[in-house]
Parts: sequence; C-alpha cells; structure tokens
Amino acid sequence: MKKLVLTGAAGRLGSYLREPLSKMCDTFVSTDITDGPKTLFENETYVKADLADLDAMVDLLNGADMVVHFGAVGDEAPFETLLGPNFVGAYNIWEAAYRNKLRRVVYASSIHAVGMHKKTDFIGIDAPHRPDTFYGLAKCFAEDLASMYWDKRGLESVCMRILSCAQVSNPRAVGTWLSYDDLIQLVQRSIDTPITGFSVVYGVSNNDRAPVDNSKAQHLGYRPKDNAEQFASEIYAQNEPLDPHDPANTHHGGPFSSIPLGESGVAHLNLNPDDTAKND
Amino acid sequence: MKKLVLTGAAGRLGSYLREPLSKMCDTFVSTDITDGPKTLFENETYVKADLADLDAMVDLLNGADMVVHFGAVGDEAPFETLLGPNFVGAYNIWEAAYRNKLRRVVYASSIHAVGMHKKTDFIGIDAPHRPDTFYGLAKCFAEDLASMYWDKRGLESVCMRILSCAQVSNPRAVGTWLSYDDLIQLVQRSIDTPITGFSVVYGVSNNDRAPVDNSKAQHLGYRPKDNAEQFASEIYAQNEPLDPHDPANTHHGGPFSSIPLGESGVAHLNLNPDDTAKND
Amino acid sequence: MKKLVLTGAAGRLGSYLREPLSKMCDTFVSTDITDGPKTLFENETYVKADLADLDAMVDLLNGADMVVHFGAVGDEAPFETLLGPNFVGAYNIWEAAYRNKLRRVVYASSIHAVGMHKKTDFIGIDAPHRPDTFYGLAKCFAEDLASMYWDKRGLESVCMRILSCAQVSNPRAVGTWLSYDDLIQLVQRSIDTPITGFSVVYGVSNNDRAPVDNSKAQHLGYRPKDNAEQFASEIYAQNEPLDPHDPANTHHGGPFSSIPLGESGVAHLNLNPDDTAKND
Amino acid sequence: MKKLVLTGAAGRLGSYLREPLSKMCDTFVSTDITDGPKTLFENETYVKADLADLDAMVDLLNGADMVVHFGAVGDEAPFETLLGPNFVGAYNIWEAAYRNKLRRVVYASSIHAVGMHKKTDFIGIDAPHRPDTFYGLAKCFAEDLASMYWDKRGLESVCMRILSCAQVSNPRAVGTWLSYDDLIQLVQRSIDTPITGFSVVYGVSNNDRAPVDNSKAQHLGYRPKDNAEQFASEIYAQNEPLDPHDPANTHHGGPFSSIPLGESGVAHLNLNPDDTAKND
Amino acid sequence: MKKLVLTGAAGRLGSYLREPLSKMCDTFVSTDITDGPKTLFENETYVKADLADLDAMVDLLNGADMVVHFGAVGDEAPFETLLGPNFVGAYNIWEAAYRNKLRRVVYASSIHAVGMHKKTDFIGIDAPHRPDTFYGLAKCFAEDLASMYWDKRGLESVCMRILSCAQVSNPRAVGTWLSYDDLIQLVQRSIDTPITGFSVVYGVSNNDRAPVDNSKAQHLGYRPKDNAEQFASEIYAQNEPLDPHDPANTHHGGPFSSIPLGESGVAHLNLNPDDTAKND
Amino acid sequence: MKKLVLTGAAGRLGSYLREPLSKMCDTFVSTDITDGPKTLFENETYVKADLADLDAMVDLLNGADMVVHFGAVGDEAPFETLLGPNFVGAYNIWEAAYRNKLRRVVYASSIHAVGMHKKTDFIGIDAPHRPDTFYGLAKCFAEDLASMYWDKRGLESVCMRILSCAQVSNPRAVGTWLSYDDLIQLVQRSIDTPITGFSVVYGVSNNDRAPVDNSKAQHLGYRPKDNAEQFASEIYAQNEPLDPHDPANTHHGGPFSSIPLGESGVAHLNLNPDDTAKND
Repeated sequence: MKKLVLTGAAGRLGSYLREPLSKMCDTFVSTDITDGPKTLFENETYVKADLADLDAMVDLLNGADMVVHFGAVGDEAPFETLLGPNFVGAYNIWEAAYRNKLRRVVYASSIHAVGMHKKTDFIGIDAPHRPDTFYGLAKCFAEDLASMYWDKRGLESVCMRILSCAQVSNPRAVGTWLSYDDLIQLVQRSIDTPITGFSVVYGVSNNDRAPVDNSKAQHLGYRPKDNAEQFASEIYAQNEPLDPHDPANTHHGGPFSSIPLGESGVAHLNLNPDDTAKND
Repeated sequence: MKKLVLTGAAGRLGSYLREPLSKMCDTFVSTDITDGPKTLFENETYVKADLADLDAMVDLLNGADMVVHFGAVGDEAPFETLLGPNFVGAYNIWEAAYRNKLRRVVYASSIHAVGMHKKTDFIGIDAPHRPDTFYGLAKCFAEDLASMYWDKRGLESVCMRILSCAQVSNPRAVGTWLSYDDLIQLVQRSIDTPITGFSVVYGVSNNDRAPVDNSKAQHLGYRPKDNAEQFASEIYAQNEPLDPHDPANTHHGGPFSSIPLGESGVAHLNLNPDDTAKND
Repeated sequence: MKKLVLTGAAGRLGSYLREPLSKMCDTFVSTDITDGPKTLFENETYVKADLADLDAMVDLLNGADMVVHFGAVGDEAPFETLLGPNFVGAYNIWEAAYRNKLRRVVYASSIHAVGMHKKTDFIGIDAPHRPDTFYGLAKCFAEDLASMYWDKRGLESVCMRILSCAQVSNPRAVGTWLSYDDLIQLVQRSIDTPITGFSVVYGVSNNDRAPVDNSKAQHLGYRPKDNAEQFASEIYAQNEPLDPHDPANTHHGGPFSSIPLGESGVAHLNLNPDDTAKND
Repeated sequence: MKKLVLTGAAGRLGSYLREPLSKMCDTFVSTDITDGPKTLFENETYVKADLADLDAMVDLLNGADMVVHFGAVGDEAPFETLLGPNFVGAYNIWEAAYRNKLRRVVYASSIHAVGMHKKTDFIGIDAPHRPDTFYGLAKCFAEDLASMYWDKRGLESVCMRILSCAQVSNPRAVGTWLSYDDLIQLVQRSIDTPITGFSVVYGVSNNDRAPVDNSKAQHLGYRPKDNAEQFASEIYAQNEPLDPHDPANTHHGGPFSSIPLGESGVAHLNLNPDDTAKND
Repeated sequence: MKKLVLTGAAGRLGSYLREPLSKMCDTFVSTDITDGPKTLFENETYVKADLADLDAMVDLLNGADMVVHFGAVGDEAPFETLLGPNFVGAYNIWEAAYRNKLRRVVYASSIHAVGMHKKTDFIGIDAPHRPDTFYGLAKCFAEDLASMYWDKRGLESVCMRILSCAQVSNPRAVGTWLSYDDLIQLVQRSIDTPITGFSVVYGVSNNDRAPVDNSKAQHLGYRPKDNAEQFASEIYAQNEPLDPHDPANTHHGGPFSSIPLGESGVAHLNLNPDDTAKND
Repeated sequence: MKKLVLTGAAGRLGSYLREPLSKMCDTFVSTDITDGPKTLFENETYVKADLADLDAMVDLLNGADMVVHFGAVGDEAPFETLLGPNFVGAYNIWEAAYRNKLRRVVYASSIHAVGMHKKTDFIGIDAPHRPDTFYGLAKCFAEDLASMYWDKRGLESVCMRILSCAQVSNPRAVGTWLSYDDLIQLVQRSIDTPITGFSVVYGVSNNDRAPVDNSKAQHLGYRPKDNAEQFASEIYAQNEPLDPHDPANTHHGGPFSSIPLGESGVAHLNLNPDDTAKND
C-alpha cells in the first residue's frame, strides 16, 4: 500500500497504532487536532487538522489508499459537543475518502452503538442499533453512513465495534477486554482483507466470557489471541456482588448503559492513571 | 388528550393530518417554518417556528401530551442542507419532548431508511438500516435517537416508515401506495395505542403487492383498508417493461436507490401537479 | 365421533362449550368437581369427579375418542393449592387418555404460560415458556407433558393458549379478547383437524391489536371472526394513560405479570358480575 | 405483451390456462407433445413439439417475451422415464428462453419439491428442498436451474409450487386446494409483476388450513380468493380417522410422501373421472 | 462467599463436587436424604434432609448465598415416584432460596429436558422443551420455575443441562461426554459469574462431536477442556453399526428417547460398576 | 467395515484418498473410467467402469457397506457433457447403493452448489442452493437425490461441499483452502460417524478466513487442523487489489461465479503444474 492515513493519532488507541500501521505502507500520515507526537516513525508525517473541516480532510486524504478513522471525542458529552467532531467529522471522512477515490475506511466504532442490548443476549454483528449515549448514537450514524457509501458509491468500510481496549480493572472487562495486540491484529486484517464491502466486527479478545458474536464477520479472518480469564479470579475477589437490576451490570454498554445522557462516563471506567483517554 | 402538536403542518402530508388530529385533543398546535395555513380548525393554533431552534421547540411543546413530527426537508439534498432541519431538528424535537415530559413522539420516518434492501426481500420492521440517500440517513438517525430516548429516558416513540403517500402514478406505487385514509388511521393508532415503547411500523396500504412486513408491529393495531391493485392494470399498461438490473426498480427505495447522493429525486417521483411537496 | 368428554364443564368457559360439543358426538360426557348443571343436553351425561383422582379419570375416559380438558383452578394461587388439580390433574388426564387409547387431548392452556414476554414482542407458538404465575407454570407443565405423550406414545394434543375469554372491559382486552364464538370455532377445529400431533395455538379473536402470532398453527385452520377494535375508542376513553413501566401493561400476561406469586389476580381482571369464574 | 408461449397446453391445467393467457398477448402459442386441441382461440397457434428436443424449443420460443412452462410427465415414474421430459425438457426451456432473450419463464413447480417436510411445519418459500419422488426431484432441478439462469444470465423466473389443483375430494385437499380461478390469478400475476428476478411461490387457495407460507413472495401480489373450508365438514364426515404416523397424512407431499419411488401415485389422488390428468 | 449449600451431596456427581465447592466459601453445607459421607472437608457440615420437606429446606438455606441443587431421583421412574423429590423438591428449593434471600440457584438440569430433538439438529439453549421421560419432564418443570422466580422475584438461576457425566463406554458418549474436570469448571463459573439472571447451559466437554450449541450461554464463560474423541476409535470398533431408525441412536436423549415412560433406563447406560448412581 | 468402494479413484483427490480408505476396510475397491493406477494397495482392487452405466454400478457395489463417490467431470462444461457422468452418474450410484443395501454414500459435493451467495454472507449448511455453473447444478441435483433416498429409503448420505482442495495460490484460497490432511479427516469422519442420516458439511480447513459455517454439522465431529493464514501475507503481497464488484471476488464460487455457463473454469484456478485435475 502506498499511503495510509490515521486520524485520532494522538489519542490513546491511536498512539498504539502508529507504529504497526507505519509498517504497512510507503507513506504514513497521522493526524489529530492537537500538536501531535514529539517523535515520528520513519515514514510518518503528522498533520494537525480538525475533523470538522471538510476541506482539510479532502486535502489530507489526497492520494491515500485507505484511512483508519479513530478521531472523535472519546467520551459521552452533550449532543451539541459531539455534533462537530463525531457526527460531521465522520461525514467529512467518508466524503473526503470518496472524493479522493480511496478504497476503504477502517473505522473505530464502539459497543455503545448497541449498548442497550442485554448481555445475556449474545448479539451478533447484525443486532439492531440500540445506542446507550450520544457517543453511541454517533457510532450508529457513522455505521449507517458507511453502509450507504458502499451501497451507493462503492467505497468499502470496516466498522470495528471496540469493547474495552484498556487494562482489565473491573468485572465487566473480564468479558469485554480487547488487548492491544488483538487491536492491532484487528486493524491489520481490516486493512489486508482483499474484499470487505461494508463489514461490521466486534473488537474483543478471545475472552472466555466475550459477550458478542463475530461469526458473521469471519471473512475478515480476525482471530484474537488474548484472554482476560487470567484476570478473572483476582478481579472478582476485589469486587462486591453486582446489582442484577442495574443496566450498568446487565447491558452491553456497561456504565454507559446507566449514566445520564450527555454526562461524562469516564469516572465509571476505572482506567489506570496512565489511561487518561479512552475510545470505548 | 389535552394538547397535541404537529410539525411540518404546512407540508403536503401535514395538511391532510390537521383536521383529524385537531379532533383528537383539546388544544391542537400546528407549526411549520412558513407562514402557515390561511384558515385554522376550531381548536387549532398555528406557530411559525424553526425546527433547528431548540429553544423554540422547547417552548412549543410546553404542556403537550404528544408531538406528531412531520417537519423536515422532504427530498434528497446535500448533507449540509439536511443537517439543520432533518438531523438537528430531530434531536431538538426529542430533547424538547423530554424536557417537557411528553409521553410520546409520533414520527414520519421513511422507507428510505432501509431503501437499499431488495424488494424481493420482504423486510420486516427489524431489517437493518440501509439508507439510500442522506434523506434516508436522517431517518436512520432519528430512529436510533428515538430508541435511545426510550431506553434511557422512558420517552415513547412510534416511527412510521412511510412508503409512497401520493397518487398511484407508476408501477412501484402499486406496491408502495399509502392512501390518505390509511395514513390517518396509522397516525391515529400510533397516538391511541396505550403503550408503544419504541415502535417501528411501515406506512403502506393493504396493497396486494405491499413489499414490507408489519407483523411485528401488530400491537399498534394498524390495519389498512385501501389497495392499489385497483390501479395495477392501467399503470402497467402505460409503462414499458422495467430494467431488472436498475436499483430504482429492484430496491425498496425506488428512484432514491438509484439517484446520486445529494441530488434531488423529485423528478423521478411522477407526482401530480397538485402534489408539489412530498414526504416519502 | 362416538364419545367426547369435557372436563371443567361447570366452569364459565365449560358452560359455553357443552352445547356445541354435544352436537359433535354420539355420547357427550361432561364432568366437574361440583354437582353440575341442572339441565343436560340430549346426549349428555354428567359425572361428578375429582381430577386429582387417577382411577376416576381412567373410568371417565373409558371408550372415549377425545377429551376436552378445561378443568383446573382458574386463578393464581399458592403452588400447594394448584398441585393437585392443575399439575397432578393434568397428568391424570393424559395418563387416563393413554390407557384408554384416546386419540387426542384438547387442552385449555393459557397465555400465562408465556406471560413474561413483552407485548412489543409479537410471540409465535414456539416462543420459550416464560410463566408469570404458578397458574401459568401449571400450563407449561401440561404442555411439556403433552409434547412427551405425543413423542413417546403417539397421543395427540392441541394446547390452546387462551388469552382473555370474557367481556372486553379494559385496554388490554382490546388486543387479547377471545369471543365465545371464536372459542367455539377454536375448539371445534382442534377436534376436527384430521392430524394434529402436538400442536399449540393461541386463543384470540381477529383483533386488530392481537399481540400473538398463530401463523405456525395454520394446519389447524383456526380463523377467528370477531374483532375487539369495535370497543377500542370507548374503552380507551374510560381509562387514564397507562404506566409504560408496569409489567401489567407491557407484558403478555397483563395483571398476572405484576401480581405477587401465589396471590389471586381476579380483582385485576375487571370481570362483569356475571363473569364470576375465569380461565385466562 | 407481444408473444407468449404455453407448454403442456393439452394437459389438464394447461387447458384451463389457454383462454386467459391468450388474452394477455398479441400472439399466443400453445404447444404439447400430442395433437393438440380441436379448436383454438382467436390469436392462438398450436405447435406439436417434444420438450426433449432443444432445437424445437429454440424455434418455438423465437420472438417470445415469456414462456409459461407446464409441460412434463405429470406423475411419479422411474427416473429414466422422467429424465427426458422433466429434466432435460426443463433445461431445454430455460436454454431456449436464454438464446431467444426472453424476459421470463413462469414455471409449474410443485409442492413435491418439498414434500418430505411435515405439515405441522408451516414452510415458507425458502424451506430447503426435500423432494418426495423423482417427480419432485425434477422440480428441484428446475428451480435450481432457474436460480442459476437469473444469477448468471439475468433471465427471470417464477416457480409456482402448485399444491392440489383439482376438485376437493379428500381431507388433505381441504388444506392444499388450488382453485382454477386462483391458478389463473397466480399465473397472471407471475406474468404482470414488473420485476420478479428468481421467485418461488406456493400455488394454493385462501384455505383456512393452507399449510404453506407465501409471505416472502408478497412482491408478486398473489392473493387467492377461494377457500376449501366450505368442503371441510362433508369431506371429514366421509373419511375414517387418519393414521397419524403415515407420511401420506403428516407430510406436505401427501400420498407422494408414502408411495415407493418410481411408482405412479395417481390411484391415491382421488381425482374425479373428469380429472384424468394431473399436475400436482 | 460466606455460605454455600449443595443438595444431592451423597450422589455420584455430588461426591465429585464437595471438595471444589468447599473451597469456594467460608461455610459449606452438604445435604442428602441418606446418612452422608463418612469424612467431611474442613469447613463442611452435612445435614440429612428430605427435599420434599419445605420447612427443612427453608432451615437449610438460612444465611446462604447460593445453593447448588443436584438432589433428585437420578433415573426414569413413574410420575408418582418423581412427584415428591423431583417436582415438589425443586419447588421447595427455589421457594426456600427466595424466602432466605439467596442470590442464585445453580441447578443440575439435563439433556433429557430436550431429549426428543434429533441429534442432527444442533440445538441451542433456546430449543423448545421436548422431554423424553418423566425424569426429563421434571427438569422442564424446574427450568420454567427458575425462569419465573427470576422474572417475578429477581432470584437468579443457572440451569446446567448435563449430558453424560460418566466414563465413555458407548458410541453416544463420544459426543455427549462431560468429564469431571469440566463439570467442576461449569459449576464454578455458574457460581462466579457476576450476573446470570436466568441462564441455561449445556454440560458437555469440548468433544469434536458435541451435539449441542452453547454459544448463547457465552456470558457464563464455560470453556471445556476435555475431548472424548480420544476414545472414539476404540469405542466404535467395539460396537456394531447402529440402527439409524431407533430414537436411542438418533435423538439427543439417547436410550431415554426409546425406553417406555416410567421404566428405569439405568440398564442402558453402560455405567461401570463404580458408577452406581447417575444424574444424566 | 468389510467392503468400501471409491469412485473417481484416478482423479487428483481420489488419488490422495486411496491409501487412507484402504486402511479402513477389509476389501477396498477403487474405480474410475480410465485404466487406473499402476500399483495398488494391499487390499485394493481396481475396476474400470463408467458411472453412466447403471448395471456396472450395481455390480460394483455388490456386497459393499459404503461408497465414497468422487467420480465426475471435475470442471464446468456444457450441460450435455455433464448429463451422463455428473447427473445420471449420481443417480446410478445412489440407485446401485440402494439395490445393494449399502448403509451410506459419502459424496464429494462442492461449494459450487451454493456459489452465487456472497462471501460476506457466512452461509451455513442450510443455505438455499444457488449453483454457479452446470457443474454446481449437478451437485445440487445429487444433494437433493441424497435427501430423498434417506427420507424415502433410509439410505444415509454425507454430502461434503469441498471448497479448494489444492495448493494455496491466490487470495481466495486463503479462506477456502482444504488441506489434504483435513480432506482425509473429513472423509474418515463421514464414514465412522455412527449415524448421519442425510448430512451436509463444508470441506474447508481451519482457516482464519473460512467463509462458511459448519456448526450445524457438528454431529460429524469434523475438526480441521490446518490454517491457510500462514500463506496470507505472501499471497496478498503478490496480488493487485481485487475488484470489489466482480463476482469472482465477492461470491463463494470464486471464478466459477463469473465464468460463462458451460465454459471451462480451469484457467482461473491457478493450479500448479502438478495439479492438473481438480474437483472443486
């Protein structure tokens, strides 16, 4: 591949992806709204740009083969806050990709697009949208947009619904963990699969208790290696029994299934001090 | 019911609904972005207002029991054109309804939310979204928003996916026709059904060739009476055989399944001179 | 048919069935635990007997072709109260039918076998059991028993899951009504269908808002004629808006979905003074 | 339509179709392997021809818009007997239609393509093939052929799986009857539907006990009017109880589900003396 | 966990579970109707008690967090024999658990609840009940009871449908084997999973030929390690070809699918002399 | 097993199977239309015979327990070319097996029976037939025949739908590869499984990107060991991006989904010089 672009490159997950993605292409362009990383990889160029600026996005994607789109506000927030970066920003990426004749958008969607389904329902990739937050609603919007750009314009997309890509620090994550290695595998296969059309896939490791069903995404060949069961007994021992009637415990979205719409859910995520940003 | 609000009241379909809706409530408020109708029904008040103005919407819905939301740009257009009235406008309606503690939003969704499915696939109300246009994408957005406001905030919604509410003037409409009488029945039952939660239902008459499946919406009790088969032989005789490889003929969205994204589809709709606006 | 037996013949529904059933056979035997009706139909014999007495049941069914089993305690009650008549009584009927080589048991099952499903889920006859009361649990037990007697012993059964066979007097019944005429049709077709194997069918009229799906029972040919929509506007006008979070309003079992296990639900059924017994 | 061709025109069902089909086109060509009817309709031409002769079929379909293919051996027979007319004959029709650029083949398939499913399984048009005879196997072959000619060559087909198009004279037919009027409607709609692609539909009247599900064929608009329930009580009274373990009674294929492969099933069909040929 | 109770502790499977369960809690109470084991584990108390005695069960569960319910007659027997221990006994356990505010019942259900399904049907946990014996009918009863106690009273349950927890000694067991290690894992995960609501899961090892589908129980995280394929060639070599028309060979219940109702099936189970009790 | 027969023994796949099959039986008979192999295994007899000759097949199968049927023209060809060996030949094998009272036919079916489904549809063994060629149509015919011989005559069959049993030399094969070792395992389990009835299973290795779903064939215990992912990066690096609108890339049949009916597809299969014959 000649040129690959990564948005959200300064975010937590974007930071993990820069190195492996840089090795998959001749020219690697990373972008975010901040000043960017201090050091770059050998074939990497960093461009500071705003997702909400369509012209900037059209320039950015010029000559690219694919774009890996991780840029967005990574937490629940009022609709008005997300409208620019998460909604219009998604439109700008697909529209810019179309105008530049890219082959594919690889997109960081989220479990929160379907977060109001119950965890005792083992949902597949074709479960109806049931967003749990405005954050999740933006993921639904981008997935439907991706579907339409494929159906009407032949632009491919892979929408990776990431579950919990962070250290395992609470009972929910024993099922929802996506290790960094598995994240990298998932992105790589979303890129190297010859034909994807419009595809959806859950981003979760090979956890014994993984609550979602990727069988209909098998053409992508994603086969995770890590398993959060190794952390189960310690995590369970540290926690009190959970309330079986709180959606935070019973629904796929976890804490986002319980928090009020528009209010930050970060406090509920038990991230380590080092994990100051999130994408789930 | 004490107070009922109708948006899009100056549009073609809104105009048909004002009289029957005014009879279902003590106070009937109609609204649109234009100057409104010249004569009003007995208990009707007309308010000129912009859907994209959240404060105006919050004022408008004050004290209402339900809102019937038909206001939107009624044709395919560039994303930027639809962003205000069709996307933000929908958010404003649900948010205003929530803040005013309304019971329910009755919403004019559209077949174009699922227009890229094939007509030989008899789709139910749970078919995945496959929008055919930005117009349809806005319907997907509003449906997912409605789902979330029910799941998280207990605000009910009925999303009526209207097919073709206009005179039968082309072969597609022999299957997709929704007569005005059946439209009225559909809206009435969406209002009088005691409990709806989040419901989706197709707005189509009892046509022999109706291509969609309402069986899972039976709790709404919608049972249409009209049947476009009466027009079939005349319409078919007037038309040349259709190309079986053109999405306009084979997909649920009809002409919208074929037109370029962002371009008006009105010319393809064969509306009568009297039918200068559309909602399908 | 030579001989037909009806249990629960002194109950409310049994009383409606005696005349039509007496016309379908040479010898008609009705039975209940009480003294029975004062006047009998021409070919009718009444036998006072206890369902919980297996020997009595074996005697009763001697020489019969089929048994129509409506006998049971017709309300929620403690498990210990229902154990004899509703659980053991059902076993006794199937066992007596088997020993006497009857062809078929036609059984008054109930929506309460699946009453904890949501009404927005349009459930078919193959929905998993989700009983709402011990009363409903006894129906589940009898259905599974019926399935086994067919699979292992070739004794046929039709389990009619009756919804609300009483005057329409509350909003729920606009969807769940089973008219007496339709009840009679249902029982007749359960008898005259040449082959039934083990079949389940919902007993509900042709209501616009009937919340259950009989399509997989079509081999029984049950096609109801009555429609409770005629009562809808009057009933709805008499009632306050319903709480959309009370299972009594949102679940198939209606009030039985809300009442405590083991406590009578009669008070919630709004039966007319004349309707002092129930079977739903 | 300019030219329409009917094969099997001298058969029982073909004879019923000649008049209505002749009215749907400018030129009507009927064909069979026998000498043909004595009198022809106004625009009708009769051609004696052998289905097993590809060149003859190519000549026959020259200039036609569609072919209605009812020609075949209409009974179970050894594979070797059916190989020419029912297997190779079907190939010849589709191949000749393709070479002559016809738009569509309307085909008399049969319930016997799926006759080994149980009647308590309410099968849809997408039930897997389960033929009951070599006769049914030939229907499976032709349906798969039709599917392929659509997928690979864009030639449309409607495969009408006819149940029992004959007088109602046995208990099975109370469910499986297809009246002649409904047959004619079915063929007409298979012709006049603008787009069919590859479609399958069951040919059965609006019987209360119709054991098959046409809901996924609704785009064809077939809505039968007749109902064999009118014959039920008389037919049932004339018959002894049926053995619930004989596939002839329990499976969709009726007597064909029981007869030995390769042996004629005509004796089991209870046809009237006037009904000396069959197509079911 | 503070206190855990195991019923059926003197049975074959119960004996395997005492040690691992005793390590999961502070206080471990084992119970059965016999005199109990000679030696106890460190924190174990043994109580002799009758499942059919509700008061005894209420006393037994006082202060417990969960109960693991393996107590029952472990073989097919007449209904009257099973009524006390298997039916009423199950009611007593759930009722006693409710009165003592336990969190969860972990229950030894059985494949015999669905034993009349065919093995070529790869059944999931939501397959309809099809019991093969009165023994299996009692399992159906307890599962429906468990469903109701969750829906109405918030008491959780895991119903483990055990297949063949015994040495592999016949061709069926190559598919149905549950090793003791896997049994222990299954029980442990049924206990330690934070939220289960009402869950069903098949108890079977990771056999190549395991005939049931646990995918919808993935939230329990049960991932068996053993595989009976190691025994396949030896077992197959020792056995004559099986009759493909005997339900004992073709149905999930194995010999129980063939034995007469009410008669012991132990002779068909090929247990080793050491395996004198059974639970499957 | 006493006697086992292999047809197509001189073909590429047949050659791989002779040795392992010879070890599973006392007498091993291999057959093909050519002169056969130069050297035979110890218990092997080679018979030159024509599949299209029923009498020869009846003689060949005399005294056999099972037949493994790989004989056929192994490429797309005109219908007339395939009619004898692939259609009539299949009939002859099943008919000869029936007349000789064999227990089972193990058949080399092909992905081309369902080759017109899209690869993004993860198809199970019950996906409807959608043949891509006359070659695939013959596989559909044989599968339906196999179904009927089981339903009507009790003759078992396993239809193995082989994907790509050849060296991995193109991007499609990264998903569709069946290694020779896995082929052998598949055939062995199709033979040694005690009861198969009529079963279908996909013949594909344990590839990360295997596009088909064998879960409903689990009773056969086929668990492949090889994984073509080892070849993925090299193969992908050698190939240009694929056209996402060419059925050869998007449909299960691969090049056969694109080639004209009746024309050889061998040139598209990228076989090595050593792989001069094919069966996929």
